[in-house]
Amino acid sequence: MPIAISDSDDPRIEAYRAVRERDLVGREHRFVAEGEVVLRVLARQSRFAPESLLLAENRVDSLRDILANLPSDVPVYTANRAVMDAIVGFPIHRGILAVVRRAPLPPVEELLARLPERALVVGLVGLANHDNVGGIFRNAAAFGADAVLLDSETCDPLYRKAIRVSVGGALVVPFTRAPSADAMVQALVEAKFDVIALSPSGKETLARLERSPRAALLLGAEGPGLPADLLARTRTVSIPMSGGFDSLNVATTSGIALHHLAGTK
Amino acid sequence: MPIAISDSDDPRIEAYRAVRERDLVGREHRFVAEGEVVLRVLARQSRFAPESLLLAENRVDSLRDILANLPSDVPVYTANRAVMDAIVGFPIHRGILAVVRRAPLPPVEELLARLPERALVVGLVGLANHDNVGGIFRNAAAFGADAVLLDSETCDPLYRKAIRVSVGGALVVPFTRAPSADAMVQALVEAKFDVIALSPSGKETLARLERSPRAALLLGAEGPGLPADLLARTRTVSIPMSGGFDSLNVATTSGIALHHLAGTK
Repeated sequence: MPIAISDSDDPRIEAYRAVRERDLVGREHRFVAEGEVVLRVLARQSRFAPESLLLAENRVDSLRDILANLPSDVPVYTANRAVMDAIVGFPIHRGILAVVRRAPLPPVEELLARLPERALVVGLVGLANHDNVGGIFRNAAAFGADAVLLDSETCDPLYRKAIRVSVGGALVVPFTRAPSADAMVQALVEAKFDVIALSPSGKETLARLERSPRAALLLGAEGPGLPADLLARTRTVSIPMSGGFDSLNVATTSGIALHHLAGTK
Repeated sequence: MPIAISDSDDPRIEAYRAVRERDLVGREHRFVAEGEVVLRVLARQSRFAPESLLLAENRVDSLRDILANLPSDVPVYTANRAVMDAIVGFPIHRGILAVVRRAPLPPVEELLARLPERALVVGLVGLANHDNVGGIFRNAAAFGADAVLLDSETCDPLYRKAIRVSVGGALVVPFTRAPSADAMVQALVEAKFDVIALSPSGKETLARLERSPRAALLLGAEGPGLPADLLARTRTVSIPMSGGFDSLNVATTSGIALHHLAGTK
C-alpha cells in the first residue's frame, strides 16, 4: 500500500531531500534513480534492489504492475507535485524516484575471475562525462558486454543522469573500479584478455579485427584519448574516418566497436 | 581589424541579440554558430560563409589564424564579457559566435543527381531531437556520407545546439528536405539508390549486409521507429542485440551502420 506524504519535512522521505545537492557531493552508500524506463529496468533486471520509491500521486496508476511485484518491505511513498518538488528541491517532471542501495565494488581480479571463458569487457580510462559513460553502459547492455571496468578518473555510472542516459544499462552490466588504468590492464592481461585499445593512431583496423574469446575494449576520453604508455602495451585499433573530419563521440565509438566485437567469432 | 562594441544596443550587432528567443522561433535566412571547434570548421571546410563574428575580447588572440583568413568584408565584432552577455541575453561561456547565411535547399532530386556513381546517403524520418540530429551529422561527416535527407518532421540541423553536437558536421555534409518520407524514398529509388531501412524488425542483419554502389540508410526516431508502410517498400535491416535490452540511441545506430556501409564494397 502506498504511503501518502503530505509534509515535505516528513523524516521518512529524508533520503529524497535536496537531490541535486547530494548528487554533487556524491552518495557513498545509496544512489537515486529516476523515471519510468529506469524504474522498469530496476524492477525487472537490475543488479540492485530499491530501498524505497517516491512517486507523484498521478504516476501510481501506470506503475501498478511494478508495484505489485516489489518486495513487501520496500516502502512506496506518494506525494502531490507541490510536496514532491519541495522534497526534491526542483520540479521533478518525471514524478518517479527510487533510492537504491549500492553494492560493494569487488576487486577487478575477482570480477574478471567470475566471467565465462568467452567474455567481452569494456575498460574506461579518464571518462569524466556522465552522458558519455551513460551512453557506453547503454551500448554495453545492448551488446551483452559482461562487465565494465572504470579507472579512478572515470565518473560514477550510478549518478542520476548517467543512469538515465544509459536507459538503465548502468543497473544491469556489472562494473567495478580499478586503482589505475595500469592496474586495470595488468588484471586483464593476467586474466587472459586480449586488450584492444581504440585510438586514432591504432595499427589495426576495427573492421578487420578478429576477436579472441576473451576481449577487452579500452576507451579514453575524446581529446586526450588513451595514454601513450598504455597504447604501447596493448593491441591498438583504429576506426578509419573520412579525410579532415576525424572525430567520433566516444559513446558512439563504443557502439561501433561493441557491435563488431559482439558479432565476430 | 576587429570592431570593438561597447554598447549592447549598437545596431551593428542586431543579429546577435536575444539568441535563445530567436533560436526558438527559428531563423529563416540565417543561423548562429558558436564555439571554437565549430568556428574552425566554418572557416576551413564549411559549405557556408559567415556574415559576421562576435567574439569576447579575450578570445581574439587564440583565433588570429582564423581571422587572418576571413574575407575582408566579414566584420569581426568584439566586446567584453558583460556587453556580450547583455547582447546575447545569457552568459555565453564560449565567447565565440558567428552569424551565417543559410543556403537555399535544393529539391531532393537535384541534390541526388549531383552525387557520384558510388554514394552514401542518410535519410532521417521524424527525428525531432537536436542532439540526435547533431550526432548523426557528426557521424555522417566522419564516415564521409555524401548527403543527408530530412523529412518534414525532422528538426533543423542548423539549430545552434545541433551544430555544436555535430562538431561542425552539419556545416559540412550537404543536406536538403523532402516534402515527406514517401517522397524521399521515391526520389532515392528513382536515383537508383538501394534503400536500407534500419529497424529492430529488419529481415537482414547489418553485419552481413553487402552494400550497393548507391546506398541510402533510413533512420526513424527511437520509440516509434520508421513507419510500417515505408518498411514494406524498402530493404529492412536490424542490428541484433542482447536479450532483454533491445535499445540503442539513434545517433549511435547511425554510427554503427555508417561504419559498416562506408567500409564495405
